[in-house]
Amino acid sequence: MEKIILSGMRPTGPLHIGHLFGALKNWKRLQDEGYVCYYMIADYHALSTEYLNPKNIKNYVEEMAIDFLSSGLDPEKSTIFIQSLVPEHTELHLIFSMFVPIPYLERNPVYKEQVEEIKDRDLHTYGFLGYPVLQAADILIYKANYVPIGIDQMPHLELTREIARKFNYLYGETFPEPEAILTETPKIPGIDGRKMSKSYNNAIYLKDSPEIIKEKVSNMFTDPKRIYRKDPGHPETCPVFLYQKIFNVNRIEEIENDCKNAIIGCTDCKRELGEKLAVYLEDIRIKREKLEKDKKKLMEYLIEGSKKARNVAQKTIIEVKKKVGVFYEC
Amino acid sequence: MEKIILSGMRPTGPLHIGHLFGALKNWKRLQDEGYVCYYMIADYHALSTEYLNPKNIKNYVEEMAIDFLSSGLDPEKSTIFIQSLVPEHTELHLIFSMFVPIPYLERNPVYKEQVEEIKDRDLHTYGFLGYPVLQAADILIYKANYVPIGIDQMPHLELTREIARKFNYLYGETFPEPEAILTETPKIPGIDGRKMSKSYNNAIYLKDSPEIIKEKVSNMFTDPKRIYRKDPGHPETCPVFLYQKIFNVNRIEEIENDCKNAIIGCTDCKRELGEKLAVYLEDIRIKREKLEKDKKKLMEYLIEGSKKARNVAQKTIIEVKKKVGVFYEC
Repeated sequence: MEKIILSGMRPTGPLHIGHLFGALKNWKRLQDEGYVCYYMIADYHALSTEYLNPKNIKNYVEEMAIDFLSSGLDPEKSTIFIQSLVPEHTELHLIFSMFVPIPYLERNPVYKEQVEEIKDRDLHTYGFLGYPVLQAADILIYKANYVPIGIDQMPHLELTREIARKFNYLYGETFPEPEAILTETPKIPGIDGRKMSKSYNNAIYLKDSPEIIKEKVSNMFTDPKRIYRKDPGHPETCPVFLYQKIFNVNRIEEIENDCKNAIIGCTDCKRELGEKLAVYLEDIRIKREKLEKDKKKLMEYLIEGSKKARNVAQKTIIEVKKKVGVFYEC
Repeated sequence: MEKIILSGMRPTGPLHIGHLFGALKNWKRLQDEGYVCYYMIADYHALSTEYLNPKNIKNYVEEMAIDFLSSGLDPEKSTIFIQSLVPEHTELHLIFSMFVPIPYLERNPVYKEQVEEIKDRDLHTYGFLGYPVLQAADILIYKANYVPIGIDQMPHLELTREIARKFNYLYGETFPEPEAILTETPKIPGIDGRKMSKSYNNAIYLKDSPEIIKEKVSNMFTDPKRIYRKDPGHPETCPVFLYQKIFNVNRIEEIENDCKNAIIGCTDCKRELGEKLAVYLEDIRIKREKLEKDKKKLMEYLIEGSKKARNVAQKTIIEVKKKVGVFYEC
């Protein structure tokens, strides 16, 4: 059996190191392990929350493509595409919608939470209620067997599996029931210790210059119980130490010891981390700069990838229409 | 201003004389008066209620096309097309869905009524809730100015107008607010006096042979107060008289008089009507027979019409995607 993978991201802002560790590194690994990978820039999903002011979506699509490529996704190996350039997703979404009961969507915990939490715009819309149906179409149109996701996405994948089962039951065996690839990834907090997020203004972006990275790291929150330089630190509760564990592995035992014994101060500790982090992201940054210089070439990659995706999607939609009974030819 | 018209029907069964008088004659008149007419066979809308068993949709699509053409719609003048052959409808549907609040859809009286009434299948589905959003896409993708509808369809058109206004407000002037063309049409009851409907098994179909027509008319309900042949009749409450007024105009005064004075009996009255009705439908029947002989040619008409429709729909969807900000080119 082919091992087909679909994953995607919503272009609603620049990518940060949380995305790099939470998704992109994993995507690259799967690509290099020989999976057939479809990586989608989900502009329609971005529209579901940004419909009041979608003018930045296109820019974020480009930035996202730059981040994808510069962190190691290879358009020769993976199919990197823009969702709206494969309109068959919208056809399959409509067909699925016909047999998806509304309670399946209303019970979606992410939907309930977001409608509750996000107050600056009305998310009580038809499209937002139905975004898991669109996700099911995104995944199943490539007959993906695996979906690399975080644990919080499990309810969505369960709905995709239910939709695949129901379609197969009603119209004949067509879709696999895709399985999750749940990979343990290091959780990287924002520079203030909270979840890293554009809206908290606490993120370190893949596009940040070395100066900005060092500046941001120098502003990181540290162990709140270490008030004076001479106080011993508690690395296990310090977000900076969490970063050191990822970006400064070789020095980690020394740093832990020096912190606990007040040999190293927080300022020096952060200065060292800032430098290491800037180096860590250097390779991505160099690739980014190159890609940014030729936006036309970048768009060619995306359009080419979208054509490749579309070839597959068209085959599926023809099969689906034949099975459902809405296919016509002379 | 161009006078653009969109109307459509759901291919869920053969068309009967209720459709002929309620819609098709009106559509032909608009076509002949020089409107730019798009007449849609709405197979996706059929799927929204027939998803459990859609295998007859394709057959009904063909039958509907035969009925359209044989009752005077002219593929040289009107664009006659199949909804699913213009996938841009599904794209526009998805884009509209992003900003349509769910309460707009839940307040739809037709939705509430159907979910209540139809018990043999689950219509509490995402697609059925959203069918007025798909209708809005059907209409607006051709920038239709007018929609010939029955009064019961007014809430749907009002939603289409709201969607047009909201799109124009959010993304810039794009769509007209289509207006209803409400035409007085004679209400033709079924042969049992109830609403004519496939599900009541009381319809006279355009495809019925003269023998079947006469048989059905001979079984029509008549004035319930006229028990014996010698009793005077009450034409104003008799469904047969309603038919006579439409299909036997020249003889109507005589029949009224003869009924009231018990000069003519119900059996004779119905025999006369059956013959007149068979003659009335003869022209359609002859055209039907010709069209039925060449299903390949018929499908060519439909595919050709769908291509014409698609050319227009593609222009609109490009304009829409540019305005919303999800349009990409090298």
